Amino acid sequence: ADVSAGRAKAVQCQACHGLDGISKLPEAPNLAGQNEDYLVKALNDFKTGARKNEMMSTVVKPLSDADIANLAAYYHSLHP
Amino acid sequence: ADVSAGRAKAVQCQACHGLDGISKLPEAPNLAGQNEDYLVKALNDFKTGARKNEMMSTVVKPLSDADIANLAAYYHSLHP
Repeated sequence: ADVSAGRAKAVQCQACHGLDGISKLPEAPNLAGQNEDYLVKALNDFKTGARKNEMMSTVVKPLSDADIANLAAYYHSLHP
Repeated sequence: ADVSAGRAKAVQCQACHGLDGISKLPEAPNLAGQNEDYLVKALNDFKTGARKNEMMSTVVKPLSDADIANLAAYYHSLHP
């Protein structure tokens, strides 16, 4: 996966999760250093609806598999 | 919430999440330092079935609200 492409895509995520992966909202989880497999599964589950969240179900819609892999790699690469 | 009670209860969680909150399995997320509100919501969602996971749906069944609050406080208290 491409961490720098993930960082560019994470601009859409920063309001809640931060570019540094440290949550900006009590409801949003910290993502810095999180497991890549877990992040990919979470994003796919929001995309398929297996997991529901008003905000996440909306923002993941336009994401491609590559975007998801890159975002997971980016946030995993950050130090919590 | 009672962090030490949470730590005692976390003995059931350590196989996947670790007592240190650092994941022991690629599928299991790191929990150390995670937001308490997020952890409480996640545990409740697994309990109500709003969120599904074979393992989690089973282990949360016997947890009381106090257990959930204590576990969330415990894992939040750990440094990632």
